[in-house]
Amino acid sequence: MLFFGGDYNPEQWPEQLWAEDVALMRQAGVTMVSLGVFAWSHLEPSEGRFEFGWLDRIMDRLHDGGIRVALATPTASPPPWFSLAHPEGLPVTADGVRLTHGSRDTYCVSAPAYREAARRIAAELAGRYARHPALALWHVHNEYGTDCRCDLTAAAFRSWLQKRHGGLDALNEAWTTAFWSQRYSDWAQILPPRATQYLPNPAHVLDFRRFLSDELLGAFVEQRDLLRQACPEVPITTNFVQGGWVSVDHARWAAEVDVVAVDHYPAGADGGGEAETAFGGDLARGWAAGRGEAETTSGDLARGWAGGEWLLMETAPNLIYTPGRMHAKEPGRLTRHSLSYVARGSRGAMYFQWRQPRGGAELFHSALVPHAGPDSPVFREAVGLGRALQSLAPQAGGAVPARTAVSWDAPSWWALQGGGLPAADIDYLAAVQQVHRALYRSGVATDFVFPGQDGFGARLTAYTIVFLPHLFLVSDESAAALREFVAGGGHLVVGHLSGIADPAGRVRLGGYPGAFRDFLGVRVVEWRPLAPGTTIALDNGDQGVCWSERVETAGAETVVRYAGDVLAGAPAITRNRFGRGVAWYVSPGLGDDALRRLVDRVTAEAGVTPVLPGLPPEMEAVRRGDLLFLFNHGEAPGTVPLPGPGTNALTGRALPGPVTVQPGGVIVWRGE
Amino acid sequence: MLFFGGDYNPEQWPEQLWAEDVALMRQAGVTMVSLGVFAWSHLEPSEGRFEFGWLDRIMDRLHDGGIRVALATPTASPPPWFSLAHPEGLPVTADGVRLTHGSRDTYCVSAPAYREAARRIAAELAGRYARHPALALWHVHNEYGTDCRCDLTAAAFRSWLQKRHGGLDALNEAWTTAFWSQRYSDWAQILPPRATQYLPNPAHVLDFRRFLSDELLGAFVEQRDLLRQACPEVPITTNFVQGGWVSVDHARWAAEVDVVAVDHYPAGADGGGEAETAFGGDLARGWAAGRGEAETTSGDLARGWAGGEWLLMETAPNLIYTPGRMHAKEPGRLTRHSLSYVARGSRGAMYFQWRQPRGGAELFHSALVPHAGPDSPVFREAVGLGRALQSLAPQAGGAVPARTAVSWDAPSWWALQGGGLPAADIDYLAAVQQVHRALYRSGVATDFVFPGQDGFGARLTAYTIVFLPHLFLVSDESAAALREFVAGGGHLVVGHLSGIADPAGRVRLGGYPGAFRDFLGVRVVEWRPLAPGTTIALDNGDQGVCWSERVETAGAETVVRYAGDVLAGAPAITRNRFGRGVAWYVSPGLGDDALRRLVDRVTAEAGVTPVLPGLPPEMEAVRRGDLLFLFNHGEAPGTVPLPGPGTNALTGRALPGPVTVQPGGVIVWRGE
Amino acid sequence: MLFFGGDYNPEQWPEQLWAEDVALMRQAGVTMVSLGVFAWSHLEPSEGRFEFGWLDRIMDRLHDGGIRVALATPTASPPPWFSLAHPEGLPVTADGVRLTHGSRDTYCVSAPAYREAARRIAAELAGRYARHPALALWHVHNEYGTDCRCDLTAAAFRSWLQKRHGGLDALNEAWTTAFWSQRYSDWAQILPPRATQYLPNPAHVLDFRRFLSDELLGAFVEQRDLLRQACPEVPITTNFVQGGWVSVDHARWAAEVDVVAVDHYPAGADGGGEAETAFGGDLARGWAAGRGEAETTSGDLARGWAGGEWLLMETAPNLIYTPGRMHAKEPGRLTRHSLSYVARGSRGAMYFQWRQPRGGAELFHSALVPHAGPDSPVFREAVGLGRALQSLAPQAGGAVPARTAVSWDAPSWWALQGGGLPAADIDYLAAVQQVHRALYRSGVATDFVFPGQDGFGARLTAYTIVFLPHLFLVSDESAAALREFVAGGGHLVVGHLSGIADPAGRVRLGGYPGAFRDFLGVRVVEWRPLAPGTTIALDNGDQGVCWSERVETAGAETVVRYAGDVLAGAPAITRNRFGRGVAWYVSPGLGDDALRRLVDRVTAEAGVTPVLPGLPPEMEAVRRGDLLFLFNHGEAPGTVPLPGPGTNALTGRALPGPVTVQPGGVIVWRGE
Repeated sequence: MLFFGGDYNPEQWPEQLWAEDVALMRQAGVTMVSLGVFAWSHLEPSEGRFEFGWLDRIMDRLHDGGIRVALATPTASPPPWFSLAHPEGLPVTADGVRLTHGSRDTYCVSAPAYREAARRIAAELAGRYARHPALALWHVHNEYGTDCRCDLTAAAFRSWLQKRHGGLDALNEAWTTAFWSQRYSDWAQILPPRATQYLPNPAHVLDFRRFLSDELLGAFVEQRDLLRQACPEVPITTNFVQGGWVSVDHARWAAEVDVVAVDHYPAGADGGGEAETAFGGDLARGWAAGRGEAETTSGDLARGWAGGEWLLMETAPNLIYTPGRMHAKEPGRLTRHSLSYVARGSRGAMYFQWRQPRGGAELFHSALVPHAGPDSPVFREAVGLGRALQSLAPQAGGAVPARTAVSWDAPSWWALQGGGLPAADIDYLAAVQQVHRALYRSGVATDFVFPGQDGFGARLTAYTIVFLPHLFLVSDESAAALREFVAGGGHLVVGHLSGIADPAGRVRLGGYPGAFRDFLGVRVVEWRPLAPGTTIALDNGDQGVCWSERVETAGAETVVRYAGDVLAGAPAITRNRFGRGVAWYVSPGLGDDALRRLVDRVTAEAGVTPVLPGLPPEMEAVRRGDLLFLFNHGEAPGTVPLPGPGTNALTGRALPGPVTVQPGGVIVWRGE
Repeated sequence: MLFFGGDYNPEQWPEQLWAEDVALMRQAGVTMVSLGVFAWSHLEPSEGRFEFGWLDRIMDRLHDGGIRVALATPTASPPPWFSLAHPEGLPVTADGVRLTHGSRDTYCVSAPAYREAARRIAAELAGRYARHPALALWHVHNEYGTDCRCDLTAAAFRSWLQKRHGGLDALNEAWTTAFWSQRYSDWAQILPPRATQYLPNPAHVLDFRRFLSDELLGAFVEQRDLLRQACPEVPITTNFVQGGWVSVDHARWAAEVDVVAVDHYPAGADGGGEAETAFGGDLARGWAAGRGEAETTSGDLARGWAGGEWLLMETAPNLIYTPGRMHAKEPGRLTRHSLSYVARGSRGAMYFQWRQPRGGAELFHSALVPHAGPDSPVFREAVGLGRALQSLAPQAGGAVPARTAVSWDAPSWWALQGGGLPAADIDYLAAVQQVHRALYRSGVATDFVFPGQDGFGARLTAYTIVFLPHLFLVSDESAAALREFVAGGGHLVVGHLSGIADPAGRVRLGGYPGAFRDFLGVRVVEWRPLAPGTTIALDNGDQGVCWSERVETAGAETVVRYAGDVLAGAPAITRNRFGRGVAWYVSPGLGDDALRRLVDRVTAEAGVTPVLPGLPPEMEAVRRGDLLFLFNHGEAPGTVPLPGPGTNALTGRALPGPVTVQPGGVIVWRGE
Repeated sequence: MLFFGGDYNPEQWPEQLWAEDVALMRQAGVTMVSLGVFAWSHLEPSEGRFEFGWLDRIMDRLHDGGIRVALATPTASPPPWFSLAHPEGLPVTADGVRLTHGSRDTYCVSAPAYREAARRIAAELAGRYARHPALALWHVHNEYGTDCRCDLTAAAFRSWLQKRHGGLDALNEAWTTAFWSQRYSDWAQILPPRATQYLPNPAHVLDFRRFLSDELLGAFVEQRDLLRQACPEVPITTNFVQGGWVSVDHARWAAEVDVVAVDHYPAGADGGGEAETAFGGDLARGWAAGRGEAETTSGDLARGWAGGEWLLMETAPNLIYTPGRMHAKEPGRLTRHSLSYVARGSRGAMYFQWRQPRGGAELFHSALVPHAGPDSPVFREAVGLGRALQSLAPQAGGAVPARTAVSWDAPSWWALQGGGLPAADIDYLAAVQQVHRALYRSGVATDFVFPGQDGFGARLTAYTIVFLPHLFLVSDESAAALREFVAGGGHLVVGHLSGIADPAGRVRLGGYPGAFRDFLGVRVVEWRPLAPGTTIALDNGDQGVCWSERVETAGAETVVRYAGDVLAGAPAITRNRFGRGVAWYVSPGLGDDALRRLVDRVTAEAGVTPVLPGLPPEMEAVRRGDLLFLFNHGEAPGTVPLPGPGTNALTGRALPGPVTVQPGGVIVWRGE
């Protein structure tokens, strides 16, 4: 089954509207809604006083309508009474400002009062609804990722550090506290990163982000275990969200959820929206696959999910948040984006939100039922999409085959967000997305791998090519796994700023990239970041952007040389045979086109082919299980060869030979 | 009589300079000065100890020189002793930072200690100067508009909310607190908007700005009543200032002052300065007219002011504050700006400030007597201006006739300042100024109307055309008044983002603009804001900017269609006959020229003509009472027809027929 | 002897690496290292517990290697234990945020607890190492310049103000507290500048920066006296750093150090780097020369330094911090920059830092031994540089002759950093650097003079031409000295924004520039700042930028007139014979080329010639003592005439006649 629906907030509406809601859901083919995500103040209007009547009624009504419920614990947004009763449970900024209620996510996850209140409301919900027939999934909390710097956090941080580092000497060593006279002589001296006179210690900041991820995970696990005990047969998830401010290492978290659920909001209005959708879908599949076969999934919903299946829990029905404005999607785009997630492993498409609110901070966030009501383009497209998902449901499933993978590493991202880096335009997320985009545009199916994950080395064996963009931090173990991958015949493409430091952020000495020098056969003796807006010529006619380096080869073959500046003639892109494999080093930053040409060369050499060779530009082809999804994101019809005769799984229509996909259209081929 | 003068701060100068001041004032024709605006620390150097000798002496000296005094209560800037004695009377930011003295406006208006200190100094002044022969006007405080988020403010806010909403249920409903779990279960939970984790609740923010306006008004009324009791015959005012940070709804305040006094500082150095001057003057006249016939005006100064008369209390003699620098006015510009205010209803022209200070935060703010002294271009121009005002004084007065009005609504402005809007470039002030500018450039006299004001419907009957730019919030009553205006034969032009929400900021459902759909004959089902810098083609050859929408007509005639993007062919500008009138809907943003063409079409259709048809570009014509002001802001001489033979009221010279106004020049025609 | 070396932090490295360090130092010709700058937490790991063993060992080892030590007191960065034990010793921002450890410079210099801790560690070091044979120099603290707004600071500020102003009346007068009701009636009311509602009082801010300079100086003097008492024969310094945030008036400080030591980090990657290097070197020499013959220098190191000699204590070996990225120097640039400092009076070239750290906030800051190790371009160039300095050492020394000087005035800089100025692009540092750059490009040797310094008038007599860029504040005494300079035959070039105010920041009335009107023969009656990006034509074909004014001559000859805008025909650049000299007034801002043409005219008229006439562009010639340094910063060989036959002091090679300097090369001519 494929899930279709979204966040539903009946508490925002008069009860007489609920019947219309359920009727419209049925009209649209909604199969599941997320309920109660921000309902704490309606469920527990004052401390310890509960009001479940309304939730009972809507759960029953939804069940009667055949709609399943992902029931949330509402712990992401404590009610105003919590602030007054437990001021120490409010988050504090690095400047020492204690935040107040009036928004959302206003809590300190290390505060016992918050944790206790969260357990209490979760336990109440578990006790009351564990056996409710509508309940299909527990949706714990919402988008974990908040941050606090208070004294309670400080205490928890110290405990975490004691476990991670053992003693103070080890911590002082890992954090290089000898720099700037920061050596700690007592655990009590260690605080969360707070406002300082000048630059902070990057290792301190990095460990604090790791701590936050684990601390938040602790809060999740606490609720999960409580829910699992109350109703062992219902799977449990929380919705992952990505953002520069989010201190959650989802690759680690994935092992703790029954179902990987993801919120994804692309930010590109033009072609970018499609590449980002593909990126989000592939990364989510990576998290899901990386967790291996979950032992704990149970219940109807989660049963039989393949390792790489996941669930799109939130996306925006009708807008793309671009810088400066909300871009309304073009007709058909909602459908294409949604099916692209499904093609990439999602078990459906859920939205934030069902009905656009009349007020509140996000009153202009889009919804399946907008302010204009069901007589509107977005609701009409939703009805069609519901129908499409219904057609696909019996056939969708199975794996998305890929021989290429890109690395994703949250700690490297965090490490590259600090100040004091050699260039201000270093952007981890952009670097990873660029590599993924090049593969996407070349039509090559792509997975993600996570160098910090247990079993990383074993997972590498599944791939022919692996890309390492900005893998700044790397452990000795992961470096060894990568070496072995190459030695065993793999093709590894290492970009600049990879392999630089150990997991504590200490530079590996002797020449960059310290962790990979041997199998790359190069040694970088000097970074030469480029000024914003300038480029450096390469001898293949391309231009380097953002970054250049003085590279010395030590065994590697020079494929491309720098052709300008003081680096003229020096190696820029190198290729090293190592064992049975090949290790590339890409020193300069490249534009999209130059990178794509490089990617095409590497894939050709490695014998990795696109999903569907001969695909016109602006078209996307994704294989999942028995299905081949064909999207036309362009403005001209696109004719594509098919693997063989088949039918369109969306319509049942026969597809005997090459097929023309109309602009904005989708066809899902299923072979005979 | 016309008032000419400015803020005079004798306490900044050695007493021996005072005689020169008065002599120079007489030379310049100064008729009134504002005294004591920031003199609290000189009047009450320590708590309860008063020093009035110097003020006595300068009041006497001014009176001897024939110069009247607008005597200020100095309560906008408490002295340093106040901070030390009453720290709880200092303002606190949303981040919890308690501000200190060392600037100005350092007080919490909700703090009893501040209110008491303010009453005490006001009472002392009232007691001592009520009968002083120089006293012409009480100038309470200065530019009300400050903000505080402390606990005392919280308590006052709660009281205000209780009056506005009655019970907590109503407040929860009005604020849509069901969104993000914000339901309040106790009044004590409600705080001013303070630093939060993420977006605030816009209804909370909006009500806080309303509260601040009323709270500041309470402080004004307290002083006003005390002054009125002490000397009932002297009129009382406070100087209104406009700015995005100012939480004062001047349309509401206007009813409480005896004289509407306005500070106005245009920010456009090029032609913009003139359009802004016209905007500021027309808006001030609107505030004054909107208060109707004031019952309370009394005393010589205020007697006989027509409803629309007001007083320019501050403007800069010789600079325009443009972004990045202070632009010195070109020769003659001071005179033209000043007379433009007079033409638009001001009873004179007052400046900040008389003498440029040697030190202090604004030591480079311009003055009538600059650092260079009276031997300077600005003082020489001031002398000429004083003479011009003296010539006009016996003839100036009377109403400024206008058949067109634009809406102004402070709460809509506040509502559109928040985050979370569909586009970051939404700018209420700019939208209103753009419509006014189009009318200004077409030479059409324009008033302002205030949809939140009592008697709004009745005031509409005075106009043939009304424009509603960005009237985001609108009550049912005002919507009904606008419907009646159209039904009765009016021409109403509604721009996008108007009629969207009720006064609490809750969206009116079923399609935008919920409040006006019926008489506009349209239904907007989707907003499609444009990316910054992009445009959308219209089928009349114009380009839409900033904003587009999917509009469905329901009775309206489509006048202009979108011609690009996914909206091609859909309605962009519509026109609906409703009752005896016409209601236009303008969906896209328009550039200045396109908007002016639309305005010209609407005015032509409605039979509204310019003040003086055939006016060359860059010229401005304003009628007030018997006078016709003709300004040439351009660089070429401009010849204009005259309504008939007359004289130049500035010079007494005969104006028999068409007259040529020199570049930078002004002629004031008065018919025979 | 010339010093070559840098900051050395053995505490960051395993002790087994120290032998390699010393060996590499010897290989590079290092003669001195700065030790212990940030070692407090290693020297005193908990309060009162000291660990000197490691320092003993490295001091001995360095001594054995023949390397001298500039031993630092580590007081710039208190250890974490200090924060916990003495929270009142932490700095507080203007917003009231108390900063924490975790970076560097985390102390309040006015806190007794900090001062006591600083004296204690300094005394311990003095006691232990006073007689150590490696000790060559005491390096007190690091880059004094931090800021605090706490109550302890408030008390110290009040004491300082009492000394400066005497009574409250004088302070009220100096600060123009009559503006905005700021009159103080009790000393307790005076606070450091803290967060305010609106603009602060600029005189308050200015005096606070003066106070900070003196307060920090007090902390330095306290350590200096203690060190001097313990070992009178070792000279004492602290490293000056420059930056907009640094509240240190180095011209005042120079009198208190035995050796002027300077940290200098140019920010221009292109030609700018060279001009900035020259600027930094000349300014440092000015500070050193301005202190006259130091009475206190003693010991081997400091003996015999001529008045203008100084020491480059820190610069970056291999990067230029440009906006947005670190620019790696081109080959040879390290050598040229270093020798340019030496040519301009430095007694060597020291770097931050010896070895690039593995971690910490500045792990990518460059070093003589980079992450790549000694097998790297930067270390190889360092070895060559060490050899060059060794060759020069016996010959370098003596004065840098100059007949031209530029004014430098820290308080004027501070005064022009505030808000409320007529233009946002006023930039004191840029204005001074621009004048210096014009002289640098014309090859004219340039000194600096300090109008606030004792003996300013006497120092002026050494010069033929003096430039006053943005000398905003000037005392009556300095103005008189400048008048006398002109009367006595000097050529004075005054730019706009000079001579405007007295040292308290109070404008001198009657027309700008109040202090200099008489001998300039002009009177400026109006400032007309230009909008960013716009220009104003001058009648010599140049364009004015940033600034224009209405200038009236009163005796001066008009050399250039404005040719555009309302100023057309009015004087722009004037020249006034006064006594036996000439005083120029330059009203508009000028571009680099226009300014250079003006500078060339003034120098020609005054008979001041370049160091080496006929120098090709991009080449630099500097005379110091018997040596003539010739740098080619360009990309083409440059042939230059020589004063006569000589030898290249770097190589001993004969230089019989005109010599060709290769691109990027240096020749140091020494006459026979």
